[in-house]
Amino acid sequence: MAVDYVLAEKANDNTEVSETNAVDALMVLCRNDLNLVNALIIDRMDSAVPMIPQVASYLINAGGKRLRPLITLAAASLCGYQGDDHIKLAATVEFIHTATLLHDDVVDESELRRGRASANTLWGNQASVLVGDFLFSRSFNLMVEVGDLKILDILSTASSIIAEGEVLQLASSADMSTTRETYLQIVASKTAALFAAASRVGAVIAHQPDRQEMALKDYGEYLGIAFQLIDDALDYSGKQAALGKTVGDDFREAKITLPVVLAYEQGTPEEKAFWKRVMEDDQQNDVDFDQAMSLMEKYHTLDATFDLAREYGDKARKALIHLPSNDYRDALDGLIDFCIERDY
Amino acid sequence: MAVDYVLAEKANDNTEVSETNAVDALMVLCRNDLNLVNALIIDRMDSAVPMIPQVASYLINAGGKRLRPLITLAAASLCGYQGDDHIKLAATVEFIHTATLLHDDVVDESELRRGRASANTLWGNQASVLVGDFLFSRSFNLMVEVGDLKILDILSTASSIIAEGEVLQLASSADMSTTRETYLQIVASKTAALFAAASRVGAVIAHQPDRQEMALKDYGEYLGIAFQLIDDALDYSGKQAALGKTVGDDFREAKITLPVVLAYEQGTPEEKAFWKRVMEDDQQNDVDFDQAMSLMEKYHTLDATFDLAREYGDKARKALIHLPSNDYRDALDGLIDFCIERDY
Repeated sequence: MAVDYVLAEKANDNTEVSETNAVDALMVLCRNDLNLVNALIIDRMDSAVPMIPQVASYLINAGGKRLRPLITLAAASLCGYQGDDHIKLAATVEFIHTATLLHDDVVDESELRRGRASANTLWGNQASVLVGDFLFSRSFNLMVEVGDLKILDILSTASSIIAEGEVLQLASSADMSTTRETYLQIVASKTAALFAAASRVGAVIAHQPDRQEMALKDYGEYLGIAFQLIDDALDYSGKQAALGKTVGDDFREAKITLPVVLAYEQGTPEEKAFWKRVMEDDQQNDVDFDQAMSLMEKYHTLDATFDLAREYGDKARKALIHLPSNDYRDALDGLIDFCIERDY
Repeated sequence: MAVDYVLAEKANDNTEVSETNAVDALMVLCRNDLNLVNALIIDRMDSAVPMIPQVASYLINAGGKRLRPLITLAAASLCGYQGDDHIKLAATVEFIHTATLLHDDVVDESELRRGRASANTLWGNQASVLVGDFLFSRSFNLMVEVGDLKILDILSTASSIIAEGEVLQLASSADMSTTRETYLQIVASKTAALFAAASRVGAVIAHQPDRQEMALKDYGEYLGIAFQLIDDALDYSGKQAALGKTVGDDFREAKITLPVVLAYEQGTPEEKAFWKRVMEDDQQNDVDFDQAMSLMEKYHTLDATFDLAREYGDKARKALIHLPSNDYRDALDGLIDFCIERDY
């Protein structure tokens, strides 16, 4: 199977890499490791059942940024790790992430993912559920091969927390009584838990003391929260073309994210009634999205969401202080700005 | 949360248990352990997100036979195991099984499971997918707690094989070119792999030599194949009321099972055209099921399926010879006849 993963090719070829952003910079820094991770991913998503690599590679090669495995690689190298188990851990993390995406698309009934038809649109919900299960199982195979019980505990616990967060999000959808606390709990679980685990295992595999392990965990967690806050703001920010998503997906799916929670909290009784109608009663007409946008502008809730993301970015940056200063730490620091400033 | 699991209550109360079948006998033999397993299951399927225990307990308390965890408990006791890690392993196995059922119902678009509305009918596909993911993650948490890398390898490998088998079944559905070899591969993967792992880990936790470990693995694998063959025959055998399934589910879902494969293999060109129309072209009318039944009778394919199940039952029985002779071995032996003679 050809590795047509475009960013890996970019990283392969020294001359073509321009350090236009922090992810590219991180890729250059970790490029040998990243190539090994990509090769391992291709190898381990293979199966005698052809539908599995078909569906899995469609998603895995779809131009994702490999953000989570890059964090694992950088965290391990930052801590001076010299072995090769971080390759397996990085692939584990990407498999967990990809399994989650496959199941998310079924849950959200998404038709698009990263600008292309989603896997469930092409192969059906059944294939998405089952290939997701396969990748999830393979992720456990990989981490078992590493054979470190502490790492197994961290990653299997993260998986439970992710699933819990996804269910909480489902239970809170179309429910305007969702508080900002519940929203943040969803974000911390469904998104930040994997960032935190991806980062933390880099320290564990390098046998670092607790302080550094916890610093990397905190970095990942805060970065993950900032990342998701930006995602949720971008869903309303009008720069959707680059995101490869339909504009206003969250609105139409009645997903209650922070920009909506904040507008509802501050809303007049009439405005609250509007939010309840469009979010809870599944009654949206052509002008409702514009009305929602103008209410979010009225209360500056997108700005507030971006501001909160910056606060979490600052926390992530402070966590890095406890770690050795080197190129990898600088790259992880740069990643914070990337996650916050990105417009896709 | 009340333990309303009826068979566990039965096992709790010495005076009310009648040894009407081998599963009841096994429950009596393992009743203290089984109560601990049930308590652990209740504890570990709990979550601060109420939808999780709601959906999970609906399925877990729905009167399943706890066949797989009972096999783990009996296998460990057969091998003289004296610790309590087999409780966690039995709960692990039941969680993997329950996660699979939740995802199966989404894949099959089933409306019934064990005679009641399926979870996806009540809570939607989304909840079934995500709560299945949660239980699957929790199963890994539990096995990580046991902390035995060999067992982690066995169970995580089994999970991959199950998912692979489910995808192969999906890819083979509505495909009359499915051979009996492919059918048996599906059965060995989606069903027998978990039976084999459930049985095998009983020997591993008791630190038994390879010969006994492999004997228990073989027992579980052959028993699992026999179990699924009977399931697939019962789907056409007309004793469906007790099975809690709609009659002819597999036929309507165009699931290609052995009774159909064998009738197709031996069919005249006209009969082959019939099978292709009803299975591949999704064109079934009111009399097609009766026609299918009469073709299976013509070639005695249900009898052949039962016969093959008995052959695998004999293999399972032979595997037990390599194990110490005691009450647990007798109970596992009795389970073979139960799996084959059951009419539900």
